[in-house]
Amino acid sequence: MSKVITLKERPSGKPEEKNFEFKTEDKPEIGEGEILLESKYISVDPYLRGRMRDEDSYIPPFKIDEPLASMVVAEVIESKSNDFEKGDHVSGMLDWKEIQKHTGEGLNKITNKDVPLSAYLGILGLTGLTAYLALETIGKLKEGETLLVSGAAGAVGSVVGQIGKIKGCRVVGIAGTDEKIDHIKSKFGFDAGINYKTTENIKEDIAKACPDGVDVYFDNVGGDILDAAMQNINDFARIINCGAISIYNKEEVPKGMRLEGIMVKKRALMQGFIVRDHADQFQDAIKQLGSWLADDKLKFDETKREGFDNVPKAFIEIFEGKNTGKMLVKV
Amino acid sequence: MSKVITLKERPSGKPEEKNFEFKTEDKPEIGEGEILLESKYISVDPYLRGRMRDEDSYIPPFKIDEPLASMVVAEVIESKSNDFEKGDHVSGMLDWKEIQKHTGEGLNKITNKDVPLSAYLGILGLTGLTAYLALETIGKLKEGETLLVSGAAGAVGSVVGQIGKIKGCRVVGIAGTDEKIDHIKSKFGFDAGINYKTTENIKEDIAKACPDGVDVYFDNVGGDILDAAMQNINDFARIINCGAISIYNKEEVPKGMRLEGIMVKKRALMQGFIVRDHADQFQDAIKQLGSWLADDKLKFDETKREGFDNVPKAFIEIFEGKNTGKMLVKV
Repeated sequence: MSKVITLKERPSGKPEEKNFEFKTEDKPEIGEGEILLESKYISVDPYLRGRMRDEDSYIPPFKIDEPLASMVVAEVIESKSNDFEKGDHVSGMLDWKEIQKHTGEGLNKITNKDVPLSAYLGILGLTGLTAYLALETIGKLKEGETLLVSGAAGAVGSVVGQIGKIKGCRVVGIAGTDEKIDHIKSKFGFDAGINYKTTENIKEDIAKACPDGVDVYFDNVGGDILDAAMQNINDFARIINCGAISIYNKEEVPKGMRLEGIMVKKRALMQGFIVRDHADQFQDAIKQLGSWLADDKLKFDETKREGFDNVPKAFIEIFEGKNTGKMLVKV
Repeated sequence: MSKVITLKERPSGKPEEKNFEFKTEDKPEIGEGEILLESKYISVDPYLRGRMRDEDSYIPPFKIDEPLASMVVAEVIESKSNDFEKGDHVSGMLDWKEIQKHTGEGLNKITNKDVPLSAYLGILGLTGLTAYLALETIGKLKEGETLLVSGAAGAVGSVVGQIGKIKGCRVVGIAGTDEKIDHIKSKFGFDAGINYKTTENIKEDIAKACPDGVDVYFDNVGGDILDAAMQNINDFARIINCGAISIYNKEEVPKGMRLEGIMVKKRALMQGFIVRDHADQFQDAIKQLGSWLADDKLKFDETKREGFDNVPKAFIEIFEGKNTGKMLVKV
């Protein structure tokens, strides 16, 4: 028998344990070309809350009474595929099941054994891939440039800053507590930090922290912080729109500074980024990130819970701010 | 002797004839490697008003008592250069002088005799180059896509629309009078037009005119029209910020819809464009535009004044709306 977690009802507001249901199913039989997977680590992420809503987005919503899914690290426990052997580990978008069968299509086979398996859900998973691929495809950092990052202490922001340092840039982070500012400087090597909650003038504080102006702004938040960053950009700056937390869940689109005048004057480039569009580059990106990780050039925070039964609870805890960095469950 | 037009004083508000002064100077002697040029057509453009202000911008301001300059078509009347012969025609950024010497550096030698010389100041000059190179470098139009253009009846917008048709796109233009809408459809082949001054809901009118959504928005105006366009963009849309007339000359930056949520959701790309950054592509671009022009695939409007003495007056007339399309002076 294998346990499965399904969506019992769509959450209204903050998710609760009653929104989830545990079921059991028989261990599946695999056919020719298929593999049987046992979940080892399950990722829980804020974006899953969006998929629990019944609305059209860039990924289809979860269905009621069907299994939930997220990034999972699993072990191959049986194989009738030429591509996988018993004992292989894979990462990929998988159902919240203890055991499941799969064709192997779209799964990443884990070959680098120098890094912990759980890293494949964080720094070698979607958060690390987001940081790396957005910088590669849009940011195009050059040595000596200045990189500004909002949400700097978050799972994505902290990797963005570290890649900036690897590329030889000045890196400035924006976060919401003095503890986070200390943390990004001491653990992740940021050159400077700005606490947006205590600053008197964020535009001026960015100018002070970025004396040569901002060449790349990695925006995880949107809103007033974006406006302040835009007033400090250099000619040919690149702005990565990776998140807009500050304007999500608002009934009406809020108003802000008109940016088109700056866009023309600075010949700036602004581009929205969603990592799933870049699946064809995942393998190479994981290789690069894994090599930096093995060389100790990248550090990460993770908060680990234990036991398959605690997956819904761990997911809910994200919204209570109980995690530092990536939240995941060791099955 | 050769006449020269200098900036006597910086205009306040609309330029006036008293802001300009005519001087005379001796016909210059040319040295080894130099050429002597006689102006044939002189371009007058709205952006020159900006250079008359004493403020830092992407090009340095004109100096008091020094010659003004713009795009000029000139004939080589003497040559001590290996690159030019007497009788050659060139276009380039030249002083407002009847006769001037030059090293030839940065000038475009006119080789295509199948098009009128004056075209090198309009459709084969900065306006045509702006339309073509912004579409090439940012728009990247694909056959079957929908192209929306604001300022559609203007010198840039009308070329943008025609290139869209050459590339096999549906082309929709936004302009400010019904006459202009008729004109862009009948003369330039736009599929549809929207009068932004008489529309009751521009967002809905764009949706109706672009039933498959907007893939590329060429923005010459900024402001509310940009917001309306953004609410109609497709995934992976490209937005070219080519002008923001609606917010220039305002004391404070106006507020508008926050666009970062749409940018992320649609993975849109928005980029500011100034044609001078792309001088290395001018030769190839002029070749392509000239070939379309010779094949009658591109049409253009121009308003021609006669006589070197009328250059300041022609410039002032732009701000009185007396031109249709490109305004220039035949010397």
